[in-house]
Amino acid sequence: MATPQSFTPPFTSSGRSALVQAPPWHYAGWLVNVAFEFDAERGAALVPAELGVATGKGCVHFADWQSCGDDGRELLDPVYAQYRETIVVLEIEPKPAGDTRFYCPLIYVDQDISLLRGWLQGWPKKIGQTWLTRSMPLIHPAAAPIAAGSRLGASLSVKERRLVDASVTLSGEQTGRLGFLSAPTVGAIGWPDLTQPGIGAVPRYLRADIIDRVEPGWTGGRATLQFHDHPVEELVLLGPVQATDASAGWMGITVRGAFAA
Amino acid sequence: MATPQSFTPPFTSSGRSALVQAPPWHYAGWLVNVAFEFDAERGAALVPAELGVATGKGCVHFADWQSCGDDGRELLDPVYAQYRETIVVLEIEPKPAGDTRFYCPLIYVDQDISLLRGWLQGWPKKIGQTWLTRSMPLIHPAAAPIAAGSRLGASLSVKERRLVDASVTLSGEQTGRLGFLSAPTVGAIGWPDLTQPGIGAVPRYLRADIIDRVEPGWTGGRATLQFHDHPVEELVLLGPVQATDASAGWMGITVRGAFAA
Amino acid sequence: MATPQSFTPPFTSSGRSALVQAPPWHYAGWLVNVAFEFDAERGAALVPAELGVATGKGCVHFADWQSCGDDGRELLDPVYAQYRETIVVLEIEPKPAGDTRFYCPLIYVDQDISLLRGWLQGWPKKIGQTWLTRSMPLIHPAAAPIAAGSRLGASLSVKERRLVDASVTLSGEQTGRLGFLSAPTVGAIGWPDLTQPGIGAVPRYLRADIIDRVEPGWTGGRATLQFHDHPVEELVLLGPVQATDASAGWMGITVRGAFAA
Amino acid sequence: MATPQSFTPPFTSSGRSALVQAPPWHYAGWLVNVAFEFDAERGAALVPAELGVATGKGCVHFADWQSCGDDGRELLDPVYAQYRETIVVLEIEPKPAGDTRFYCPLIYVDQDISLLRGWLQGWPKKIGQTWLTRSMPLIHPAAAPIAAGSRLGASLSVKERRLVDASVTLSGEQTGRLGFLSAPTVGAIGWPDLTQPGIGAVPRYLRADIIDRVEPGWTGGRATLQFHDHPVEELVLLGPVQATDASAGWMGITVRGAFAA
Repeated sequence: MATPQSFTPPFTSSGRSALVQAPPWHYAGWLVNVAFEFDAERGAALVPAELGVATGKGCVHFADWQSCGDDGRELLDPVYAQYRETIVVLEIEPKPAGDTRFYCPLIYVDQDISLLRGWLQGWPKKIGQTWLTRSMPLIHPAAAPIAAGSRLGASLSVKERRLVDASVTLSGEQTGRLGFLSAPTVGAIGWPDLTQPGIGAVPRYLRADIIDRVEPGWTGGRATLQFHDHPVEELVLLGPVQATDASAGWMGITVRGAFAA
Repeated sequence: MATPQSFTPPFTSSGRSALVQAPPWHYAGWLVNVAFEFDAERGAALVPAELGVATGKGCVHFADWQSCGDDGRELLDPVYAQYRETIVVLEIEPKPAGDTRFYCPLIYVDQDISLLRGWLQGWPKKIGQTWLTRSMPLIHPAAAPIAAGSRLGASLSVKERRLVDASVTLSGEQTGRLGFLSAPTVGAIGWPDLTQPGIGAVPRYLRADIIDRVEPGWTGGRATLQFHDHPVEELVLLGPVQATDASAGWMGITVRGAFAA
Repeated sequence: MATPQSFTPPFTSSGRSALVQAPPWHYAGWLVNVAFEFDAERGAALVPAELGVATGKGCVHFADWQSCGDDGRELLDPVYAQYRETIVVLEIEPKPAGDTRFYCPLIYVDQDISLLRGWLQGWPKKIGQTWLTRSMPLIHPAAAPIAAGSRLGASLSVKERRLVDASVTLSGEQTGRLGFLSAPTVGAIGWPDLTQPGIGAVPRYLRADIIDRVEPGWTGGRATLQFHDHPVEELVLLGPVQATDASAGWMGITVRGAFAA
Repeated sequence: MATPQSFTPPFTSSGRSALVQAPPWHYAGWLVNVAFEFDAERGAALVPAELGVATGKGCVHFADWQSCGDDGRELLDPVYAQYRETIVVLEIEPKPAGDTRFYCPLIYVDQDISLLRGWLQGWPKKIGQTWLTRSMPLIHPAAAPIAAGSRLGASLSVKERRLVDASVTLSGEQTGRLGFLSAPTVGAIGWPDLTQPGIGAVPRYLRADIIDRVEPGWTGGRATLQFHDHPVEELVLLGPVQATDASAGWMGITVRGAFAA
């Protein structure tokens, strides 16, 4: 082949084997969101000083996504469309001063396509296993419908260890947006150059360019949240966390690129 | 401990480690159902003669289940509640003559708890990976909502090989019940006794004792269906299959035991 | 088909789709074995009184198995041959009095075929994820060869939570047999009958009928061992455990059936 | 934190959560290697013209790796050390003219750490499931020892579909190096910049800087090999392939960086 034209590796003449195809990328998902508070000073362990200062507020988003390109092909072979994800975001006062935003220090997903699409948008994804209860439109003991008193659980495990546990009891009332649903969210990404193996990655700060948001509303609730110790993952650097708010619902977005943040 | 009291192995003094706890078992799920026709004479490869004769009609059900006991504990730790499943059922004229029913020759699930609960109810489950597109209540390219023209895909893989592929285009119209949703379904289960290792299992025919069915309605569609060859799994013994009808929707049921069929 | 002849469910006219084929079953594996001591009185939580009394000694075996029938077909499609397993055994003084033996209260495996073959032999298996370092015949930092000072790790996770962690530092010296390698091992199995759903399984005590054991020798070492708390799995009922001995090596066995124990 | 110092994302003040730590990376593995021939003209679909021209020879390597850094920590928690991989390499006449080398168009691995370490070295990895029979030092039907007549199988599946099947019957004789074991191997990697989303990745050609190779010898054999059609993966672009040679054995290497190729 001539110089390869694939959007990402692997490179082939057709571009078909590329792990990720060019955007737009359409996402629709079921999300359980748990807002929390922590000692703001501890945020410095996870937030780059050059980007801002943690306010002591954060959110964990557990998401059950379905995603596709413009032709919707992935919806017909859903191992290509579906993945589950846990997103941790911390609210920051940005530098230079500006509107409050969120920074994503850690995020975990269970499919390679989403891993790389995330990296390209600034989400520093690793592989992890997310489980979250789904609300079904049924009145039944196993359906956890969107209704007052329904109980939902969510968990994240990384390398065979439980890292996050959460539960939400729905109020049945509509509520506002939490976490990355409420403000722009920035992440840091970067690739070391192994031809100079002594030098680590230089972080580049990006945020996704999101359009066509469809968000019929969030149902509120109260939550519990635990971060567990782990030999690699460092969520416990935030110290004790206190769940302060929660919501659940569906949302659709389209990502067409990214902005330097 | 005294004589162990666990509902199933493993046996411990508390019964807590048992793979399966006693019923009732509540199930709520999202199902994609594809009815098909095949050469009825080929059904004898998969249907026990003593139970009945295949009519040449069948159905594949792809299901995304959530399940719990009376205390709902599993919904708070959803790795215990959720599993995906592919169920193949064949319509039979029973012996002795009676109302049409279905027989399940092959069924595949992705969690051990469901595997054993199935065996106890007469479902001859093996481990397999099921994927199915979910309808979300959003108008968005990735949401596959319950609406005319939405396209859904479903697949089953067993031991790293694709075994079933299906797609459904929703009509948006309500439709009737397909497959095991429409008539009692019988399965064969049984355990060889290794103290007499030359003797295989004696099949026992069971069907689940289902109560508290919640079924708000099925949305119809047209479908495609392929069974692929496999070195172990024998769906291709049915010969060419033709998808004849399809539906998708949510359903809740409770299983409290089983009947000899 | 006439009355089905499959060795296990699912039943088909050929028997080919049966989850398990009839024995003999040949097993060859790499094992890391960690002997431990615990407060013998706590053993009553996991050992049926009618079978015997725990002595306060036990062993955890981490195994990386390869298995096949007489035709060796599985070795050509190794997703059918390979699985990993963690086996917990407790030494008991049997009732009626007799030679010391082991009892297996809990065991975890990662493939369905092994799950059911285990059940038929009396091993009360559940699905769990086992990892264990392998010794390779290389002098290299990542090879962990069979040599003094090589360090091996092993772990078990069940439903996304770490349950057991162990490490072994090899002495390089040959050592004796530990755990189920050293004495007959009994397990309890049984199936509740859902047509009488209020009644749990009646345990039946079985042990495998093992022939053609090939065991070139075990290399000793010293170990660490931790059992972690878990919402379902009950290893912590044994209280604090102290690793007392360890070994690693390869072994082959053939199982041709089972004995009532 | 000040400007983050992690070797790769995620960035934290300690660097501990980084998906990949800085090299050196030590690898020890069991490999099954199948050399094959194909119509050289078809190679242009997978080989960048600017790099060279396919000769019609290639090799598939199935590998069961164990990997660690200098402190060997991963060997004590082997979910961090072990992964399986399938590597496809094609022999090329390089441009400008020079010694024959190999080019890796497609490679599949089952752990995220290896995925990113590979990208950094020029290996365009995706997630896939590899299985390969292991030789154990036992004379036993399930051990597949390094001996004349032992049969080994290997397979690769990607997104729930079988993509490659191979089998090897060992001759018991020592043989030479095949595929990437025999010559430098180049891969193409590169990242699109989503702030300019219309532009795909620019390939950069890299090869690993490998030291401390430990390679006690390869046992030869004859092989079968099939590439299967797949909706995304494009191995069938090579047309019919003919297995010409095979080997199996253990190898250790250390990677300390990469070279521009």
